[in-house]
Amino acid sequence: MNDVRRRPGRRPGSADTRGEILTAARRVFAEKGFDKATVRGIAREAKVDPALVHHYFETKEGMFAAAMQLPITPDEVVPLLLEGPREEIGERLVRMILGVTARPETREPMIALMRSALTNEQAAAMFREFITNALLFQVADRLGVPHLRIEAAFGQMYGVVMGRYVIKLEPLASADPEELVQLLAPTIQRYFTA
Amino acid sequence: MNDVRRRPGRRPGSADTRGEILTAARRVFAEKGFDKATVRGIAREAKVDPALVHHYFETKEGMFAAAMQLPITPDEVVPLLLEGPREEIGERLVRMILGVTARPETREPMIALMRSALTNEQAAAMFREFITNALLFQVADRLGVPHLRIEAAFGQMYGVVMGRYVIKLEPLASADPEELVQLLAPTIQRYFTA
Repeated sequence: MNDVRRRPGRRPGSADTRGEILTAARRVFAEKGFDKATVRGIAREAKVDPALVHHYFETKEGMFAAAMQLPITPDEVVPLLLEGPREEIGERLVRMILGVTARPETREPMIALMRSALTNEQAAAMFREFITNALLFQVADRLGVPHLRIEAAFGQMYGVVMGRYVIKLEPLASADPEELVQLLAPTIQRYFTA
Repeated sequence: MNDVRRRPGRRPGSADTRGEILTAARRVFAEKGFDKATVRGIAREAKVDPALVHHYFETKEGMFAAAMQLPITPDEVVPLLLEGPREEIGERLVRMILGVTARPETREPMIALMRSALTNEQAAAMFREFITNALLFQVADRLGVPHLRIEAAFGQMYGVVMGRYVIKLEPLASADPEELVQLLAPTIQRYFTA
């Protein structure tokens, strides 16, 4: 999602400008939450031009994902979920989450964010705003699904990921992904359709 | 669950013997996990006779619940869940969990235990063993439900409780309990019957 082309007549910033912007972004997101943080405010904190922030990160969502080292951004996830038959969205969602959490390198940053939200009120506010406004409500509103129903679906997948990878409940922790898809997809589908 | 009747010919222990046993129990459960902790080992740690531990706490499950200040013990919960029509177990379970988590004084110790399991591997092992062997598998085995299915149900309710009370997602956090029962009971019921 990073646009690294050099634009004519513009200094692209020092070698670690991108890193400095991300450090500033983490500070601003933690302090203001996701909703109130702005590209302009993050640029000010990083002492760079807002245009330079846009040069590296297309959207606030993309910047948040990069700052938290999330493997995927809502800009990528939402279209994937909405693409394809409506009656298979439960299965698509379960497959996507099990896929992203299967590999440690993509799972760990997500778990770190989920865990921090449970131990720290500031992190909870940041996570809450990001997960609802940037992700859940984007999907729900495009499909006309009530917010409470998509949060029930979120609860199911959140609990399964925590049970599988953090609490490590057996047989859940070593269950075959395909068996989990068969078990969980109808639950998620029901929240999206009933 | 505490038997506080004085038995003839037995010293009931000093005023805070019960407290000393619970302190010892917390230490032993944290060190050994739930499965490997024994009444005998806890008595040794507390420097009291095992009979005195049994005098205060009928079962290891009861002692664990008291040590963690949990509002309910598996000995109380399991029969309540199993009582009544099988086709209403989803609704009974959802009502019970929403009821117990509705009041801060019964919710907070449960959340503390769930939270510690996410931040500390020792606490995770203790929570994992307690939740599966003392609670989930007790219910599942009596009903002939596969362990994976009851863990999927656990995941749903765990995620809802975390979303409602810790992450505080709206509208989930302020949803009417009755609306949540209608939304979630069919999910839990399906795991118990399909």
